[in-house]
Order: sequence, then structure tokens, then C-alpha cells
Amino acid sequence: MKALLDQLRSIAGEANVLTEGDLSAWEHDWRKRSQGKSLAVVRPATNMQVAQIVQACAAASVTIVPQGGNTGLVVGSTPDESGTQIVLSLQRMNAVREIDAANLTITVEAGCVLQAVQQAAQAEGLLFPLSLAAEGSCTIGGNLSTNAGGTQVVRYGNARDLCLGLEVVTAGGEVWNGLSSLRKDNTGYDLRDLFIGSEGTLGIITAATMKLYPLPASTLTAWAAVPSLESAVELLGMAHRHLGAGLTGFEVMGQFALSLVARHYPQMRVPLYKQWPYCVLIENSDHESDLHARTQFERLLESAMEEGLVTDAVVAENLTQAHQLWHIRESIPLAQAEEGLNIKHDISIPVSRIPEFCEVTDTLLSAAIPGVRLVNFGHLGDGNLHYNVQAPAGGDNAAFLREWEERVNTIVFDSVHNFSGSISAEHGVGSLKAGKLLDHKSPVALEMMRSIKRALDPNNTMNPGRVIRA
Amino acid sequence: MKALLDQLRSIAGEANVLTEGDLSAWEHDWRKRSQGKSLAVVRPATNMQVAQIVQACAAASVTIVPQGGNTGLVVGSTPDESGTQIVLSLQRMNAVREIDAANLTITVEAGCVLQAVQQAAQAEGLLFPLSLAAEGSCTIGGNLSTNAGGTQVVRYGNARDLCLGLEVVTAGGEVWNGLSSLRKDNTGYDLRDLFIGSEGTLGIITAATMKLYPLPASTLTAWAAVPSLESAVELLGMAHRHLGAGLTGFEVMGQFALSLVARHYPQMRVPLYKQWPYCVLIENSDHESDLHARTQFERLLESAMEEGLVTDAVVAENLTQAHQLWHIRESIPLAQAEEGLNIKHDISIPVSRIPEFCEVTDTLLSAAIPGVRLVNFGHLGDGNLHYNVQAPAGGDNAAFLREWEERVNTIVFDSVHNFSGSISAEHGVGSLKAGKLLDHKSPVALEMMRSIKRALDPNNTMNPGRVIRA
Repeated sequence: MKALLDQLRSIAGEANVLTEGDLSAWEHDWRKRSQGKSLAVVRPATNMQVAQIVQACAAASVTIVPQGGNTGLVVGSTPDESGTQIVLSLQRMNAVREIDAANLTITVEAGCVLQAVQQAAQAEGLLFPLSLAAEGSCTIGGNLSTNAGGTQVVRYGNARDLCLGLEVVTAGGEVWNGLSSLRKDNTGYDLRDLFIGSEGTLGIITAATMKLYPLPASTLTAWAAVPSLESAVELLGMAHRHLGAGLTGFEVMGQFALSLVARHYPQMRVPLYKQWPYCVLIENSDHESDLHARTQFERLLESAMEEGLVTDAVVAENLTQAHQLWHIRESIPLAQAEEGLNIKHDISIPVSRIPEFCEVTDTLLSAAIPGVRLVNFGHLGDGNLHYNVQAPAGGDNAAFLREWEERVNTIVFDSVHNFSGSISAEHGVGSLKAGKLLDHKSPVALEMMRSIKRALDPNNTMNPGRVIRA
Repeated sequence: MKALLDQLRSIAGEANVLTEGDLSAWEHDWRKRSQGKSLAVVRPATNMQVAQIVQACAAASVTIVPQGGNTGLVVGSTPDESGTQIVLSLQRMNAVREIDAANLTITVEAGCVLQAVQQAAQAEGLLFPLSLAAEGSCTIGGNLSTNAGGTQVVRYGNARDLCLGLEVVTAGGEVWNGLSSLRKDNTGYDLRDLFIGSEGTLGIITAATMKLYPLPASTLTAWAAVPSLESAVELLGMAHRHLGAGLTGFEVMGQFALSLVARHYPQMRVPLYKQWPYCVLIENSDHESDLHARTQFERLLESAMEEGLVTDAVVAENLTQAHQLWHIRESIPLAQAEEGLNIKHDISIPVSRIPEFCEVTDTLLSAAIPGVRLVNFGHLGDGNLHYNVQAPAGGDNAAFLREWEERVNTIVFDSVHNFSGSISAEHGVGSLKAGKLLDHKSPVALEMMRSIKRALDPNNTMNPGRVIRA
């Protein structure tokens, strides 16, 4: 191993091969579920260095865990406990290589922080619409490796939908320059989308060309109380019809989830949640004017009230108010943490079946665990719920997790399965769900995934054990 | 072979295994460039029958050419001349299985004609936006296998972008049920997008779940003359800013292309083309009202005229006029055929580089072939040009093709390559461009494609020789 470390130092530079001191920033996962130990953390600066590192590790039969901002939620980018894996951090590869405003594209290196990509676009009067809670520290390479979702998927799609081309270092240590900036290119198999979402198990994304959009003239946010989840789904359909592509966000938040924010962050003043089971947050982006956006929004909300889909609503008067409303939504996970440990899910269900899914699954959980509390919220526009399960009030949260986590997961995932849903909507598989995947993915799909893994990474050196297990 | 044919008859029924009579509808390609000969044309009615046919052919070492509407332009869905291949036609699998309006999805079998999918959506007040010239006869399975593009890609993307889930019969004769109707699902490798665009070389798409959108309240079409291709590109950027997602079509048409329509179809009354090198066709889809759409359009065109990007323009007064304008655009290929055989291209270039590409390539061609005529038109919004090359006036078209096709292709494709473009934007590879791909795709990408082909179709029974050659 000494020879390999020397080789890595000669490739990336002495200062960029870390083997001593506190490496927890690279070795521990974001949610502190796993504390791994690496042989070294290597921080290359160029795609050629990445290729050389991959070649050196392959020659030494050392496996590689690629890492971006290490903000993943499924233990996909930290090493195992063996001390034999290399963490290959892309953080130093953080250049914006090119913005082509007339082509509406930006080419960035994998280690670019998401917010930096958004800002680079904005400086040219353009929008890069991928947006999620970790945007201040997650990287675009990680976003692509996990096909990140977030809050604007209802309009702009997931990370995959925003990507036109990739540069990848293959498991064989070659650089594939697939940095196309074309909207149409039908010359062979879709390698791009195969690497996107493969969580570093097939190769290492080192750069990407992403789509940009014109900045909207106005972005407005409304907060509405709805009498039921059925009404929320109907309101979503109405919002699609009224706003068309102006509908850039549609979040749902259950009463208990909001009550946790109100309890733990009383300064936030959560509106309208006390009498109604759910509230929704709607975002309208308009290419004409603020006035036009407001008129459209008011028409939508009036129609919704007439039909009884909305019981009360506020439209943010200005950007500050809009940020406050979004901040409430984004504080739910933190308020939940304040309340105590809980069992988290990141599921998706066809939008039309969400009310029935929740009714059925709530009932199953309440029957199994009297007094159980459901922190239900998420991106309703995408059918994506963070359907989290909290211990009954006053219980011992840690004991609840130990006793119930596995059984609760089984109840929820089986129900997701029955409703043709997904057990991982936007967070990916990592180590955390690789076992569950074997139960919930079709054997035909699993076998195709294994064939592809063997074809592109025959020695299983790239992030082994993640996503697909042999 | 007799035993195999008997087996196929017992699977699909006597009447659905065609071996005699005129089979040219299945054996000759759309553009009549290739006249193949099949062992049999088999027309299954269910995915289970498809699976059994694949198994039977595998056991007999007979290769399969999947076929939809047989409207492809690159000889990808007709058999070779050996008389040993099976054509597997999906045309009898043409059911609309489900429309879920609240989920904005439709599930259809592969043999559904594109227009039938559009109509099924419209009957529910919804839009299925894929639209292209062959929509009356091409099938959704073919559209997905070739990742079809068309006229609304600037807003809604290619066929790939409209698909949420697939049902596929694998090369091993298994049915993969991947008919997800979810907007977010990060549970493993993107098998869906691997099959999409693989032109039947990895498996056979038997059904798909596709995205739907709300029907716009109004769709308006404008026709504008522009002083140059640079102006057309600037106008496109302005249209993005003014109309946002309302911009659902942006076509460009060169003066010579339009003059051919005017010459061969004088009844069509081509507007505004005589004094200006290019005209553009712009479509604006609005979710509010006809009045709003018109106001938006007028503002755009006024701004463009003020900045000298547009010299003259008309907005269609009604749907009939709009159809007339689109009809002119769609008649260019036919007018070209009337003028005589020509050398067709389907290329894409980053939008920002299109003016320079055309200038450079026009010059190269004119230098090589004095008097050569360029029929340049296409989907400028997607950077996709049908940059076709017609013999000098009065020349012998057939002789021109014989003498020049290969050399013209080399000039154009090399130039495309220099401008980071694609030699097949929307038509795919098929047999016609499989050889060219070897020159213009990166060796790293080609080797990954070969690995994937070997992994998923180890005996090379699915549409062999298409897309990727060994």
C-alpha cells in the first residue's frame, strides 16, 4: 500500500493525499449513520489525475469511493470500515468551464457547489433550476451521480433532465469526453443517463454540460390550507391547467409536520395550519411581469376556493415573505430532529393514488403502533413524499427506532410496492437501501443492472456494494 | 427453419406469420433505399407472445428485426437481404392501456400510432406533445426506439424526455415490467433510457408510460423574415425570454428551400421569403387565453423589429392560417423530392455556433461543387438542421448522387465534428450511419456501447449490425 500511496502523491501532489488527522469530513456520512475509515482521501485537480488515480488503484486492486460534497442521505459516498478504500474527492475540480448564453448551456466541473452553478448562471441573466436543501455544500457531480431532485422538479425535472453531456473517467481509467451541449443527438446508446444516477458505481463524473433557462420576470409563492389530501391533488391539477409551465413548485405539508415547526421555531409564525389537515406551498414563475403573475395566482386561488379545494390562502407580498414561507417548509426536517429521532422515508407514488396510499398506510402504522405520529410532507407535484414516522408522544425515541425501524420500513415499503411506487424517489440507494432493492425491484431489472455493472466495471472497483449487490 | 415457422405460428396464430405474397410494406424501408427479404413477418398480439417469439428465435439462432410503423429514415427496422431474419412487427399491440389524468400519464402499447396517442390524450383534455411528420403512421414504440424528436422539442424534449416507464422483452426472452408512472424514482441504473434510442438492438419495447400535459388555451403561429441566420439565433434567445415555456416551436427555413415549395406548390403562397435569406416559424402556446397569447406575440415581434432582428412578420389569424404556415414548412422535403434526388442530413450543432457552421460549410461545399444548392431548414430551437445538398440547377440528379454523396457526407460530417455537433440529431443510426459512427464517435464511447450490447444481448440476436458494429 505504501507504493500506491506514493504513486497517488506523485499524481495529485503530497498535500492532496490525506491519510492522517481528522478525516471525518470525508469518512462519516452526512446523517452520521456510518463512520468509515479510508486508506486515503485523494483530491485530484484534473480529469487526467482522476484517470491516473483510477489506473493506479486498479493495478493495486484498491477500490474507490467517489465523493462530492458528502451530503448524501443513503451512505453512498463514504468508505466502509475496512480502511482499504480510497475516497476520491472531486472538490478541487470546481471550475465553471464555459457558459454559452445563446445555447443556454453551462459546462462545469464535478466539484462545483450547486449554489455556485446557480450563481454563475444568474450572473448571465439565466436560471439553473436545480434547487435543494443542501445546495450550499452539495456538488453538481454528486447531484448527477444521485440524480438529485428537489423543489422545482414539477417544472424542470430531476438532475438527469437538466444534463446534456458528461465527462467521465471510466472504471478502466480512460477519459470519456461526452460533453455534448446538443439538445438532440441520436448517435447510439444513452451512456449519459446510465452514469447519471449510478452513484459512482460505473465510473466517475468529472464534468457536465447542463441546461439553462431564461430567468423568470417574477416568482411568487402562495400558501394555502386544504381540507384534505384529495383536495391537494385536485388543486395540483387545477394549478397545472391555470399556470402551465409557470407552476415551478408544489409542496404539501401535513398538520403534524407544521405543528413541529411551530413548536420548535415559534418565531417562524406558521400560517393557516391549525384548523386544516394539510397546507400546500405553490410557486408561480412568470415570464411577463409581477402583476401578471399575481393576477394568474389570484384567479387560481379564487377558482380553488369556489370549488372548496382551498379553505384559506395567502400570497407572499414580496421576496422576503416568500423566503419565509419556503423557510418553514425547509425547516420541517430540523424541527423533526428537535422532536427526536425518527424513521425517514423518501418515497414516490403516482400522484393520483397518494390520498389512498396515505390513508391505507397511516391505518396500517396506527394499528401496529398505537399513538404513532406521521410527519408527512414533500414534493406533491412529483408524487414524492417524505413520509416519516415519529414515536408516540413522550416515548423514548432511540428505543422506538431500535424496536421499530425495520418493521416500519417493511410496512411502508410493502405499501409503496402495492401502490406501484418507489422506495427511493430522490435520495438514491447507496448502502442504506441496497439490500431493500433486492426485495422491491424486479429480478429482471436487477439482473440487467448486474450485467451492466460487470460490463463497465468488471473488477468491481468503483464504489462496490453500493446500488447493486452481486 | 420449418420447425421454427411452425412454432411461430403456434405462438402468434397462423394468420400472423407472413411468409408469402407482397411483404414489401415490412421489407422495404420508408425511403426505398433498401429492399430486404425476411424469413417471416411475425405479428404478435401480447408481450407474452413477443417473449415466446424471442425465445424460439434464440433457440433456432435466428435474428430479429423489431418494427413499428416502418417510417424510419436510416434503414433500422427492415431485414437484410439474407432471407434469414424475422421481422417482428408490433403493429397489432396497439391498445391504450390506461390514462391517469390526475397523474398526467398515459400507458400505451408499442404499436399505438403516434396520432392515436395524441388523440387519446386530447379526448381527456390533455396534450401529448410529441409531433412529427410521420405521426399518422409511425408508432410510439418506434418513436421510443429511435428517441424521435420533431417540432416541439424546444419545449417538451425528445421522446426520451416524455417517457416515464417501459415494458420490454429482453434479448433473453423475459418480460421486464418497468412501466413506472413516477416522476421521481432513483432505485438503480437508468435501464429505461438505455432501451430508448437503442433501435431494438438491446430488446423490444412492448409498452410505455408517457407524460401528458394540460392542453394550452391557445396556440398561435407567427412567420417572420430575418436578415440573417445570426438574427434568427438572436431572435430565438429573445423568444425564450419573452415567451418562456410558451415557446413550443422555432423552425428556420432557408430561401432556396422556400423557393422550392413556391415553385412546386404555387397554391401554397409562401410569405415573405423573396427578399430575405431566411424565414422562421414561431409557435406560442398559452395557458391563459388567445388574447394573451396574441399580445405576448406582438410584443416579441415589435421588440425584434426594433432591434432589426425581424424585417417583416405575420401572425396567423386563426387555426386554418396556422396550419397553412406549418404545411409550408412540412412541404419542404416533398418540394425537394420534386426538384430531384438530393443528399440529406440530419445534424445538430450548438445553437450559438450555427451561423458560423453554415458559413464555413456552405463555403466548403460551394468550393467543391460550383453551383451546388443548399436546402437548409430545420428545428433551430433545438440546433437541429436538415442541411440537404441538391445538385446544381439543370444537372443530372442521379449522377450527382452517385458521384458526390460520399464526398459531400465527408465534408458535412467533418464540419459537424469540428463544431462539436452530431451527425444524427433525431433520425438515429440504423444501418445507414452505423459505419459513419465509427469515425465520429469517441472510441471510449464506442467500446462502452459494445460492452453493453454484449452484456444485454450476448448472442447478438436483436437487430444485429444496427447502431453499433463489432
